[in-house]
Amino acid sequence: PGVPRGRGCAGSREVVATCERYAVRRLPFARLADGDVAFFERLMPGRVVTGEEVKPFNVDWLKSVRGCSQLVLKPQTTAEVSQVLRYCHERNLAVNPQGGNTGLVGGSVPVFDEIILSTALMNQIISFDKVSGILVCQAGCVLERLNEYLEERGFIMPLDLGAKGSCHIGGNVATNAGGLRLLRYGSLRGTVLGLEVVLADGSALDCLTSLRKDNTGYDLKQLFIGSEGTLGVITAVSILCPQKPKAVNLAFLGCQSFPKVLETFTTCRAMLGEILSAYEFMDEKCMELVERHLKLSSPVTDSPFYVLIETSGSNATHDEEKLNNFLEQAMASGLVTDGTVATDDKKIKVLWGLRERITEALTHEGYVYKYDISLPVGKLYDLVTDMRARLGQSAKNVVGYGHLGDGNLHLNITAESYSHSLLDAIEPFVYEWTARYSGSISAEHGLGFKKKQFIQYSKPREAVVLMQQFKAMLDPKGILNPYKTLPSAL
Amino acid sequence: PGVPRGRGCAGSREVVATCERYAVRRLPFARLADGDVAFFERLMPGRVVTGEEVKPFNVDWLKSVRGCSQLVLKPQTTAEVSQVLRYCHERNLAVNPQGGNTGLVGGSVPVFDEIILSTALMNQIISFDKVSGILVCQAGCVLERLNEYLEERGFIMPLDLGAKGSCHIGGNVATNAGGLRLLRYGSLRGTVLGLEVVLADGSALDCLTSLRKDNTGYDLKQLFIGSEGTLGVITAVSILCPQKPKAVNLAFLGCQSFPKVLETFTTCRAMLGEILSAYEFMDEKCMELVERHLKLSSPVTDSPFYVLIETSGSNATHDEEKLNNFLEQAMASGLVTDGTVATDDKKIKVLWGLRERITEALTHEGYVYKYDISLPVGKLYDLVTDMRARLGQSAKNVVGYGHLGDGNLHLNITAESYSHSLLDAIEPFVYEWTARYSGSISAEHGLGFKKKQFIQYSKPREAVVLMQQFKAMLDPKGILNPYKTLPSAL
Repeated sequence: PGVPRGRGCAGSREVVATCERYAVRRLPFARLADGDVAFFERLMPGRVVTGEEVKPFNVDWLKSVRGCSQLVLKPQTTAEVSQVLRYCHERNLAVNPQGGNTGLVGGSVPVFDEIILSTALMNQIISFDKVSGILVCQAGCVLERLNEYLEERGFIMPLDLGAKGSCHIGGNVATNAGGLRLLRYGSLRGTVLGLEVVLADGSALDCLTSLRKDNTGYDLKQLFIGSEGTLGVITAVSILCPQKPKAVNLAFLGCQSFPKVLETFTTCRAMLGEILSAYEFMDEKCMELVERHLKLSSPVTDSPFYVLIETSGSNATHDEEKLNNFLEQAMASGLVTDGTVATDDKKIKVLWGLRERITEALTHEGYVYKYDISLPVGKLYDLVTDMRARLGQSAKNVVGYGHLGDGNLHLNITAESYSHSLLDAIEPFVYEWTARYSGSISAEHGLGFKKKQFIQYSKPREAVVLMQQFKAMLDPKGILNPYKTLPSAL
Repeated sequence: PGVPRGRGCAGSREVVATCERYAVRRLPFARLADGDVAFFERLMPGRVVTGEEVKPFNVDWLKSVRGCSQLVLKPQTTAEVSQVLRYCHERNLAVNPQGGNTGLVGGSVPVFDEIILSTALMNQIISFDKVSGILVCQAGCVLERLNEYLEERGFIMPLDLGAKGSCHIGGNVATNAGGLRLLRYGSLRGTVLGLEVVLADGSALDCLTSLRKDNTGYDLKQLFIGSEGTLGVITAVSILCPQKPKAVNLAFLGCQSFPKVLETFTTCRAMLGEILSAYEFMDEKCMELVERHLKLSSPVTDSPFYVLIETSGSNATHDEEKLNNFLEQAMASGLVTDGTVATDDKKIKVLWGLRERITEALTHEGYVYKYDISLPVGKLYDLVTDMRARLGQSAKNVVGYGHLGDGNLHLNITAESYSHSLLDAIEPFVYEWTARYSGSISAEHGLGFKKKQFIQYSKPREAVVLMQQFKAMLDPKGILNPYKTLPSAL
C-alpha cells in the first residue's frame, strides 16, 4: 500500500484521519529557517540531510503515517546531541528522535515538521566485560549486530525481536521493547543497568553505570525506559547480557484448540522449567498468510493453532531429554496432534521464520490495523474470536498470534485499504474489551502517535496527570517527540 | 551494644555524631498535639500506639540510630493510609513509613519526632493466579509468610534475604531489596509488576496491574521502587513469582585465595548455567565469628575463603549430574580444596545459616560499621584488604562477604563501641575507594539516613538535582520520611 499524500503536511490518509479524530494541530514551535540549517551544517558537516533524501525518514515502516520534516541530523557523539538539543530548545524547534524506525505505533516519525534526530551514526560499542557480561554501547547500534558481536564472545543480547536487523538498541530501550526472549531473560527494566540521556535543554545525564546493583537514590534511568523519546534522547546503554546457551532446541507443534494451547503451556512450563526460553503461538490464518505471501512452507499442517517452543540450556543431552519427555506426554495426552523438532541452526531459523515473519506477511494484505494487547492468558484468544464475529465481512482477515507465555496477543485486522468506518467498528471496541479484563492496550509496542488517546483504558486519570507533570518538568517547552505517548488533553 | 541517649531528641550517639557532622537539624514541621492523637484514635480506634510502647519503633534493628516519635499508627487499608497522609499533609506533620524495621542504613526509623506509619496490620494477600504466578498483596505481608503461602501452591517469591522472617514486602520494594535470589530471578525492577502508592497529599495512585507487559505511558511505579518511602507510601504490591524448583542442591566449598573464588565463579557459571541460583562468598573471619558467637559449626574448615553455591532446577538427576561435573573439575584443577554437598532440606538450611547469619554474628562484636558496596567483581576483595591494612589495630575485625555473583560486597568493620575517630578513618576513604573503581556506595541497602550525604560518590550532581526536583514535585512539603535518601544540601 502506498502512502497517499493528504492535504498540507499531515501526509498519509491515516494521519489526516487521526488528526481529525483527535484534533491534533501543529503546536506553535518555531519553523525551520535557513540559519538553522547553516548552524547544523557547521556543527556536523556532511551529516545534515535535506531535500529528497529526507523522505524515507518521514514514513514509518508500516507506511501508515507520514510527517513532513525537512531536516535529518546524524550526530556521532553525545556532545553533538547535546549541542543540537540546546540549540533547538533555545530556538523552540521540535525534535523527533529516530532509531531504526521500526516502530508500529507511529512514534518514530515526525507528525508535522519536527527535526529528525537520527541515531544511525552512533553505532560504537564502548566496552564489553566478559566476566560480568555487561555491554556498554552507543544508542544507534543495531540489535542484530550487537548480538553477533556478543555471540563471538560467548554471550547474547537479553532481547530479540523480528525487527532485529534494523532496530537500534536506543530505540529498543526508549520503547521498552519486549520480544521473543522476555519470557526467559525478563524485561529491559531489569537488564538495562545504565543509560546516558540528553535532556530537552541539552544537558547530559550520565547514569551509565555498569553495576548489577546500585541503590543510591532514585533510579532515574527507569523514567526514560519506555518513554518513547518524549523525556530525553538516549545516547548510550549499559546492559546485562546472558551467556550464550550451549544447546538450543525448537519444537513446532499443532494444537486443535486454544484451551489445548494453554494446557500445553502449563505442561511445558512445569516440565521444561528453567530451560524454556520462548512460548509463541499463531492461529491458522497467520500460517496461511505466511505461506501465501512469503512462500514459506510449514512442516506441520491442518491445525487451528500452532505453537513454537524454544529451549535454551547448558547441556544438550539434558535439554533433549526434558524436551522429549514433555513431547511424549503432550502427544500421549492429546494436547498436541502433530509436530516437529529442530536442533540444528538452519532448521531452527526456518521454523522461527514462520513466526517472526507474520508481521511482514500481513503488510502484503493491504492496510493493517495492529493491536498489541496484554490480557490474562486464559482470555487471550477470546478477543480475536469476538472481533472476527463483530467485523464479519467488513475485514479481510482477523488474526491472532503472539507471546503467549507473557500474556501478550498481537491482534491484526487487514483490509484492502484504510477506512474510517472499519476503524470505527474496531475502536474503541477493542480497548473497551481489553479494559473490561484489566488488560493493557499496549503490551510492548508503546503508545506513540496512534494509541496515545487511548491511554485511559489502561491507566487511571491520576497516573496520566502525574505523567504530564513529569513531561512538563523534564521538557517544559515540549519539544521532544511532540504529539506522542501522552494524550493531548484529558 | 545499648543505645545511649544523647542530648535532646537525637537519641543515639551515632545520631548525635551524624547530626553534628552534617548539621542535620529538625525541619520546621508541626509538633504533634493532643488534637492530632484524638483525630487518629477516631480514625483507627485501638490501632494508635503511644507512650512506652512506641519505644521499639524508634530504634533500628542494629540499635545504631534512634528517633523520639511519640506516635505509631497502624492502618489496615489503603483508605486509612490516605486519610492519615491527607491529615498530616494539611497539618504539616512529618511521617516515617515503617515496614519490618530491618533496614541497615537508618531509613526505617524516625530521626526526630516523625509520626511512624507502620504497615504491620496491612498483611492481607489479595490474589494469586496459579497460571501466571502473579501475587497481589498488601504492603505489610512478611516475606517469609508470602514464600510459605506460595510454596504450598508450587511457587516461590523471587527474592529472599536474611531478614525474611520480619521484613515486609512493602519495605522490600521501597528499598529495592536485592538478596540471595537476585542472581537467578533478577531485581525487583523486573519482577514487580504493579504498585499501589499513597502520595504525600493522601491521594492514592493505582498502578496495581497484574500484567507481565504494559507499555502504556511512563512506568511510574519504578520511581517508588527504591525511593525508601520518601516519594510515597507503598500500600500494595503485584509481583511475578517463579515456580518452586523441583530440585535444590547446595555446595559449600573452601577456596585458598580470592582469585580462586573468582575462577570458581566463572567455571560454575559456565557449567551450571541456567540452574545456578546463588553464588555467595565469605572470608575466614566471618566463619570464625559465626562459629564463636552463634555456636554454629562448619563442615568445611581451614580455608581463607568459603563459597556457597546453590542450584535450583526442574530435574534432580540432571542437576546433580551438572553439579557433580562442576565439582569434579573444580577439585581436579585445584580451585577448591574442600567441600560438602547438601540435597536435603535440613542440611541445606544448616549450610545457608552459616552465610545468612553473619550479620547477626557481627552484632555480638560491639559496634558495627556496615558498608554495602558494588564493584567490578575482580576488585571486590581488594577493598577489604586495603581497609584492613589501613585500620590496623584500631578495628577489632574487618570482614568481607556477600553476593559475589552480583558484584556485591558487604564490608563490615567492628569495634568495642562507636568512635568518631574510627569512623573518620573509614569514611570517606571507603567511598573514595569505591568511586575510583566506578562502584556503588550502596548496592542493595539504600542510603537511608546514614549514607545520604555520600550519594555524590556514586551519582553525578545533575542526577541528584533531578532527584530533588522529583521529591519537590511529589512531596512539596517534604513530610515523607524526611532527612533520608537525598542529601540535605548539595
